[in-house]
Amino acid sequence: MEEFMLTTLEEMEAETAKLLETGQKVGADSWQQRAKNQGSHCKFGEEGTCCRICTMGPCRITPKAPRGICGCDVHGIVGRNFLRFTAGGAATHSDHGREICHTLYLTSEDGNYKVKDPEKLKKIAAEWDIPTENRDIYDIAHEVAETGLMEYGKPFGTQRFLKRAPEKTQEIWKRENIEPRAIDREVSCAMHMTHMGCSSEPEALVRQSLRCGLSDGWGGSMMGTEFSDVMFGTPMPQDTEANLGVMEEDMVNIIVHGHDPSLSEMIVEYSEKPEMIALAKSVGAKGINIAGVCCTSNEVAMRHGIPMAGNFLSQENVVLTGACEAIVVDVQCIFPALGPLSKCFHTKFITTSEIARMPDSDFIHFNSENAGENAEKIVRMAVENFPNRKKDLVYIPKMKQKATVGYSYESIVKTLDTVTNSFVDETGSTRPLIECINSGVIRGAVAMVGCNNPKVRHDYAHIELMKKLLANDIVLVLSGCSAQAAAKAGLMSKEAKKFCGDGLRRVCELADIPPVLHMGSCVDISRMMVLVANMSKDSGWDINKMPVVGCAPEWMSEKAVSIGNYVVATGLDTYLGVYPQTKGSSKVDGLLQGGLKDWVGACYHVELDVDKLGDSIIEGIEAKRTALGI
Amino acid sequence: MEEFMLTTLEEMEAETAKLLETGQKVGADSWQQRAKNQGSHCKFGEEGTCCRICTMGPCRITPKAPRGICGCDVHGIVGRNFLRFTAGGAATHSDHGREICHTLYLTSEDGNYKVKDPEKLKKIAAEWDIPTENRDIYDIAHEVAETGLMEYGKPFGTQRFLKRAPEKTQEIWKRENIEPRAIDREVSCAMHMTHMGCSSEPEALVRQSLRCGLSDGWGGSMMGTEFSDVMFGTPMPQDTEANLGVMEEDMVNIIVHGHDPSLSEMIVEYSEKPEMIALAKSVGAKGINIAGVCCTSNEVAMRHGIPMAGNFLSQENVVLTGACEAIVVDVQCIFPALGPLSKCFHTKFITTSEIARMPDSDFIHFNSENAGENAEKIVRMAVENFPNRKKDLVYIPKMKQKATVGYSYESIVKTLDTVTNSFVDETGSTRPLIECINSGVIRGAVAMVGCNNPKVRHDYAHIELMKKLLANDIVLVLSGCSAQAAAKAGLMSKEAKKFCGDGLRRVCELADIPPVLHMGSCVDISRMMVLVANMSKDSGWDINKMPVVGCAPEWMSEKAVSIGNYVVATGLDTYLGVYPQTKGSSKVDGLLQGGLKDWVGACYHVELDVDKLGDSIIEGIEAKRTALGI
Repeated sequence: MEEFMLTTLEEMEAETAKLLETGQKVGADSWQQRAKNQGSHCKFGEEGTCCRICTMGPCRITPKAPRGICGCDVHGIVGRNFLRFTAGGAATHSDHGREICHTLYLTSEDGNYKVKDPEKLKKIAAEWDIPTENRDIYDIAHEVAETGLMEYGKPFGTQRFLKRAPEKTQEIWKRENIEPRAIDREVSCAMHMTHMGCSSEPEALVRQSLRCGLSDGWGGSMMGTEFSDVMFGTPMPQDTEANLGVMEEDMVNIIVHGHDPSLSEMIVEYSEKPEMIALAKSVGAKGINIAGVCCTSNEVAMRHGIPMAGNFLSQENVVLTGACEAIVVDVQCIFPALGPLSKCFHTKFITTSEIARMPDSDFIHFNSENAGENAEKIVRMAVENFPNRKKDLVYIPKMKQKATVGYSYESIVKTLDTVTNSFVDETGSTRPLIECINSGVIRGAVAMVGCNNPKVRHDYAHIELMKKLLANDIVLVLSGCSAQAAAKAGLMSKEAKKFCGDGLRRVCELADIPPVLHMGSCVDISRMMVLVANMSKDSGWDINKMPVVGCAPEWMSEKAVSIGNYVVATGLDTYLGVYPQTKGSSKVDGLLQGGLKDWVGACYHVELDVDKLGDSIIEGIEAKRTALGI
Repeated sequence: MEEFMLTTLEEMEAETAKLLETGQKVGADSWQQRAKNQGSHCKFGEEGTCCRICTMGPCRITPKAPRGICGCDVHGIVGRNFLRFTAGGAATHSDHGREICHTLYLTSEDGNYKVKDPEKLKKIAAEWDIPTENRDIYDIAHEVAETGLMEYGKPFGTQRFLKRAPEKTQEIWKRENIEPRAIDREVSCAMHMTHMGCSSEPEALVRQSLRCGLSDGWGGSMMGTEFSDVMFGTPMPQDTEANLGVMEEDMVNIIVHGHDPSLSEMIVEYSEKPEMIALAKSVGAKGINIAGVCCTSNEVAMRHGIPMAGNFLSQENVVLTGACEAIVVDVQCIFPALGPLSKCFHTKFITTSEIARMPDSDFIHFNSENAGENAEKIVRMAVENFPNRKKDLVYIPKMKQKATVGYSYESIVKTLDTVTNSFVDETGSTRPLIECINSGVIRGAVAMVGCNNPKVRHDYAHIELMKKLLANDIVLVLSGCSAQAAAKAGLMSKEAKKFCGDGLRRVCELADIPPVLHMGSCVDISRMMVLVANMSKDSGWDINKMPVVGCAPEWMSEKAVSIGNYVVATGLDTYLGVYPQTKGSSKVDGLLQGGLKDWVGACYHVELDVDKLGDSIIEGIEAKRTALGI
């Protein structure tokens, strides 16, 4: 048996270079070239010291001009920009959640969408005091969905899911006045506070950033995750494969990309229909191969084992293989570049959401009512496009790795049950994990999340940090593009236990898990919140005292800041490998990287050197252990 | 009798120069200096071609870099920035409306806030199918308020007030898919669409800009106006005075500044209490003088005849008089500069809202529950500050003008009733005005609104355009800082009829009105929407065919863009004297300044030369007359 090896970044980069050669042949643009074209970035923008909130300006803070025309100082400007950045992310994540609520509202026995996990639905209904006994499951679904939709706009009260947090955490939120009210209200409130002539006090702006983030993590995102599970099934461990080699030269390749599983679930379903497979054969293909990019990939991988072609900065590569019949997208993190790029190949670039309309795409409006019909249309379009493939442009890198994915909170607990002595201990809890942490077999856990960013060598920070943390017996839970980085490299293979320290390796063997656990898409960071909340309840440790931290080493999107804010506000120190646009204000930066400790017991830590970032995470975790006396 | 003369800009500027001299003595900063310090503005920002929506950038579009790193082109970037600008404005206006709804929800027979216009309340209740018969007025108020609050977040349906529009307009909104749903949802949706990797198609982004704007004008702002009338009374013509000369050297001067009348109404009420007046006398003052700045000024002027000290760019001047004991603010358009500036004088800078926290201020949290108590505290604080005035710094310019203000829609109709032959014609309609327009005695109407902006000589565009339009028999309805510009100059005096053409002058004489009608604050542009809607119903002319247009010659805020979008989407051509940050995209700019005609029958017109802007408005109105055959 061959020794298990990770795929190296150098190998991946060599393949990308080959793909870019194809791109050059057909005159395609690439993010690598565009990043070069942009040159060095505007410092005012990067440091948050440029204000474009009214048309008296734009105003920029310099030694000669220490205030904007309205008199706002650098702290107010940076703070406003930071809050708006958060609002953009919170609105985006939560609006995804809203779409899921709407889909749940339209589920029916014989409709496009059904309830696949009635137990989970009933559990949520019970949490929300919605009666379930002797009721049709769809009646329950519709009432839960409508109640969920009201979380976006109810005139009074705070988010229902806050009650899932440990009491201590709830008390902190109350004390700090950051309990989120209706989700959309927090977004609007953030926009109002940052309007010309409103808030310029950094504390007020950062406080609302936390509240707005919490409305995402414990509101919109959490509903997005929970109701996706209700409709599409709660993820359980699945075997799959990752990296560009999952594309198949002799099959119709359909790439699903974006975030909302309502689209990708239907594409997967329709691609498996016999008449579609027959159609594929009739045009000379062996069948239909679906693969994912970005969070959509996480969604379908963890529920169906659909292979993962790549993450954010790989999205152009799938088209550059010349073997992509269609790239089907919904919302978020979709390069507008895919429009012109797909025109250089035979690829159909299919947009489906009113939220993400892009030039040079085929728009097929996808919604709960027409989902089946349009999924079929899309699959058919892709299949019929197979003969248009330009054979001389086709090159699919051979690289791929095995991955075991699908570690929802429920699936982690079930896995832990397998190592629980059920004669002695209660099952269905996180206690076995806590015991490992308590004894030091596992030193702690890192929730690693988020994006890629050309400011960091593609996936370098993800992979290097993971290797370092595993070697130090720190277990990883991943979501978003971080998860695909791990999977592509091979770190989600169970064989990757060989990179762990002795303690963690033994745990992986005993529980039969990879050392890097795939928890899903970026809305699924709410799963991590549920995990730490329950670990806190099971252990008696306050969340902000547990040796568990967050890390986003290559983040780029507004969603990432919204996430960061709710993760920190929940009590987890969060380590960033890209600087937020706050460097220009010592006060805002000081709050984020220190002052927040006094509010919520956690804060941000920014370090651009990957090695130092890793050291700092380990130190942070060890310091927490020491403080807990473990 | 002395001949009536306008106060000229030169006179105002000479007085400002004197006040700035005082400022220099005490080391105060000023917007004039800060604007100079900023130098010329960043072209990327001014033209909308800089994208800061993720941290891969900031990206800027240049000939060498025609796309951002994600591949977004200049049209996508400019379109996203424009939509976000709109979202900021819509959220801000509407959140003001929400506060008013909350206040209405807390009205009670013996509370801080009461129902003063029960007829208006019942009228709205009837529109919304809320029963009124045999019900306590406060029961009705609370149900209306709660229904109003639901307009921000209801999961289904569109804004209730859309039904006030003529059917033709409603059909256009439906056809163009711009009927606004829940107000906050439109804001969140705008933030989502503009997130990294979502919409980059200019048409989609501009369409959502219209929808988001409509959620403000026919949603949040309209509720703000209507419920303010319910609680504080529907404005009727009032005599008042305007300009810095309304401050009184021998009285305690309290300046109210901001937007929400819930604060200013209480300050006015408490400043009139005998014990407060006695307290003022006890510290050597003759009494308490309240004056307003910005939209708060409009609110209290039109309901109580409180004098108007100035508009947006005058806000520092009131402190520079050295005779301002307190400047009490709530939200929006408040210079953070007032913090450090007030520290150069004895002035108390009192912030009152969680939405607008500012450094160097005294924060007294003001809400419906503590309104009375805190209003008293604020008035007392101001009065007790009177002895701290530094006499040698006091200089109050003598300038002031008479003004008749308070022309709500209802008050315009009542005024028109006075010239209706009630034996022949039905009263309570806009028909007399329509007859004047139809016959050509009045050529048309201009709704002039909005801000000041240092990019335009302070108030120059407002005043010059008004003079030109009046001379051409075009009647003006004003709101916001435009209204104060007129009042300060004297154009809201009934004597200003002398600047009108023969036709309009005769109308002013007959109806006993000034030629420039004060319709209120910036949320009150919703009054103008009601006016044109009813003019359309009364005349049979479609709104987009009437010789009525909007104009914002010195606009600066995001609210102004939100307003512009709903005014255009309602069918009124809108003339701007400051360029929106859209110049960088021919597609976005082309839609705004042309393409929208095909959607809603109206569009923007941008012209920075004030004289040409006036000509273009007159041509536009005359062209509409020709098309109507009148």
